[in-house]
Amino acid sequence: MELLDTVIVRHGAELGVKSSTTRLRYDRLLVKNMKAMLSSKGLPITEIDRRFGRIYVKTPCPVDVAKALSMVFGVSSTSPAASCKALLEEIADTALKLVGAKSGRGLRFAVKCRRVGVHEFTSMDVCRYVGSKILEFKRDDGWLVDLENPEVVVGVEVRDEDAFVYMETYRGVGGLPLGSQGRVLCLISGGIDSPVASWLAMRRGCTITLLHFNIQPFTGEKTLEKVVELSKKLSTWCPGYKCSLLVAPFGLVLKEIVEKCPAKLTCVLCKRMMLRAAVRVASKMRMNGIVTGDSIGEQASQTLRNMMVISEVVGGFPLHRPLLCFDKSETERLAREIGTYEISSRPDEGCKAAPKRPAIAASPSEVAKAEQLLDVESLIRGVVERLVELEV
Amino acid sequence: MELLDTVIVRHGAELGVKSSTTRLRYDRLLVKNMKAMLSSKGLPITEIDRRFGRIYVKTPCPVDVAKALSMVFGVSSTSPAASCKALLEEIADTALKLVGAKSGRGLRFAVKCRRVGVHEFTSMDVCRYVGSKILEFKRDDGWLVDLENPEVVVGVEVRDEDAFVYMETYRGVGGLPLGSQGRVLCLISGGIDSPVASWLAMRRGCTITLLHFNIQPFTGEKTLEKVVELSKKLSTWCPGYKCSLLVAPFGLVLKEIVEKCPAKLTCVLCKRMMLRAAVRVASKMRMNGIVTGDSIGEQASQTLRNMMVISEVVGGFPLHRPLLCFDKSETERLAREIGTYEISSRPDEGCKAAPKRPAIAASPSEVAKAEQLLDVESLIRGVVERLVELEV
Repeated sequence: MELLDTVIVRHGAELGVKSSTTRLRYDRLLVKNMKAMLSSKGLPITEIDRRFGRIYVKTPCPVDVAKALSMVFGVSSTSPAASCKALLEEIADTALKLVGAKSGRGLRFAVKCRRVGVHEFTSMDVCRYVGSKILEFKRDDGWLVDLENPEVVVGVEVRDEDAFVYMETYRGVGGLPLGSQGRVLCLISGGIDSPVASWLAMRRGCTITLLHFNIQPFTGEKTLEKVVELSKKLSTWCPGYKCSLLVAPFGLVLKEIVEKCPAKLTCVLCKRMMLRAAVRVASKMRMNGIVTGDSIGEQASQTLRNMMVISEVVGGFPLHRPLLCFDKSETERLAREIGTYEISSRPDEGCKAAPKRPAIAASPSEVAKAEQLLDVESLIRGVVERLVELEV
Repeated sequence: MELLDTVIVRHGAELGVKSSTTRLRYDRLLVKNMKAMLSSKGLPITEIDRRFGRIYVKTPCPVDVAKALSMVFGVSSTSPAASCKALLEEIADTALKLVGAKSGRGLRFAVKCRRVGVHEFTSMDVCRYVGSKILEFKRDDGWLVDLENPEVVVGVEVRDEDAFVYMETYRGVGGLPLGSQGRVLCLISGGIDSPVASWLAMRRGCTITLLHFNIQPFTGEKTLEKVVELSKKLSTWCPGYKCSLLVAPFGLVLKEIVEKCPAKLTCVLCKRMMLRAAVRVASKMRMNGIVTGDSIGEQASQTLRNMMVISEVVGGFPLHRPLLCFDKSETERLAREIGTYEISSRPDEGCKAAPKRPAIAASPSEVAKAEQLLDVESLIRGVVERLVELEV
């Protein structure tokens, strides 16, 4: 519809409570990220107008742009809109043109208005005037006003000398602008959880570097293929930012664990070694934390007791678990929204080293004893030195 | 309605994938927690029948019991139901009695059936037979079958020799049975976030002990009053379990920080001292982790950089942040569901020690330098020794 010429972009309410310097920094970052997202999708814009609490984007393809911008972290919602002058007559004309395209008999509608600036009318005046004009216009179709439970909402935003009229709103992903909070190292496994954890870290403003521990020959090639695909999918959420995948050869470490240590401790020992290597990498690359997909009690290695033994090795380095208290169903729902569910669900070879009866409450002393059978330092060094970086 | 005599309790899907021993343990725990919840609300039951994937509760007040049991962690949904023998005729009779109480003309309905056991009919037979009987029964009211988008769903569960018919389903809170994962120490402040974080830890099966750092005279008495109320509200979610509130006098520590250290570091230093004391308490009481309401970037002390400096002091002790990647709006929505929002939102005196311009990226070296001006060890010892336990 050619009438639509603008996209209204609404910030998260959280951005509103920041100090003015922080807010300005976040706003600028948001605009930069919006531009990168649109450019990655080849969507053209002609102007971006940043105002308090809103960003107005002029574009020839407002519906596609509104959908694309709803995927930018920090955006709470977007609406394709028709712009006009902030005059009652013009607003009503624009609204009539918009509802003219909406067919249906006996529809219940409401007009909602938000006004900023000095005008000769109030928001209530706009609602009443536009509402009465629509009633008149749709009399033959039997439309009626219903402020409680409308089927059609005509939104009006009046901003100083401009007004915007819209009927559709796309829910945004929310969160904070990407790049507003340091960089984290996200462990990624090929399963459902870790990509969601990485995405959630991005949603709260963190840029990410992915780290995969390749346990071949204890798994096949499919796992790594899935991880590469998942990384590509995650990178579509952060256009304009580097999102690299580090692959660490971990088969030798796992082989040592399997051959030398009690089988029931395999998973706990494996995770401890992975985290040691991750802390080494994250510190060296000056990153601000490690992110994992752990959720309490989801797997044997994720009981609270085993998490305790595993956390031990990070020292004071921040270990972030965004999914800590998520139910599996919530994680799966998010994975579907993010677009990683289908990739994560593809079959792979699993881990052949996983014991049948893993310990669900490994004690620190038995773990320490088992690790005496390993040359921990040289194994970790071997992993970190053989790290390979893939651009995705 | 006297027809209803049973509550169908559905487990989370997650419980289904556990090993048989873990599942049995979780099932027993769930039943124990269900009994405690009903007893705390004075709701009577006559029998609990535990079967694979379902628990059937006989009770004279099925609607209240179904609502109460939907609040037990590990329950995915509940339905008040009418029981009968697993015979087509009886099932149809029962269904007709149930829909008889439902008035309305031209309603779209569907029959759904789930069957376990050996019977002379299939689930599909049940749907067809019961559906045709309802159509006949409601012919004058013009009811019609709509499997896609029904307004009325008649559910039938056939279990061996029993059948259950229901029309209402209450969504459960989900998660894992309380008590299935160790105990955690939850820091609670009087704000919106920390009670939600504590509740989420419970939802994933952890029992909780609450710890509040009382910063009087830097705040007034209202904060502690709110914390006591919040603790009481949280304890209604874990009947049968001890949920105590520890109050630590922290005014002296904060006074030292305010008087001796740079103002911009106040919050970071305060949090480091709190976490040191928390680790001391949690270790002494053999708890499995510390839980906080931190969310990345929500406050100045919760930037990723400041979290790094703060995490440093816990060493390898597990620090859990269930809200890490939550948006404020999500946390608020949960707080409303849990019943803590209203209490947390009451005005209190706030913290008078909070600086106007807190550091958003404190460096480890400046923090270390500032802490040299404090007698960290004796301050922490003073806090831990003066801990008071309140039963809530």
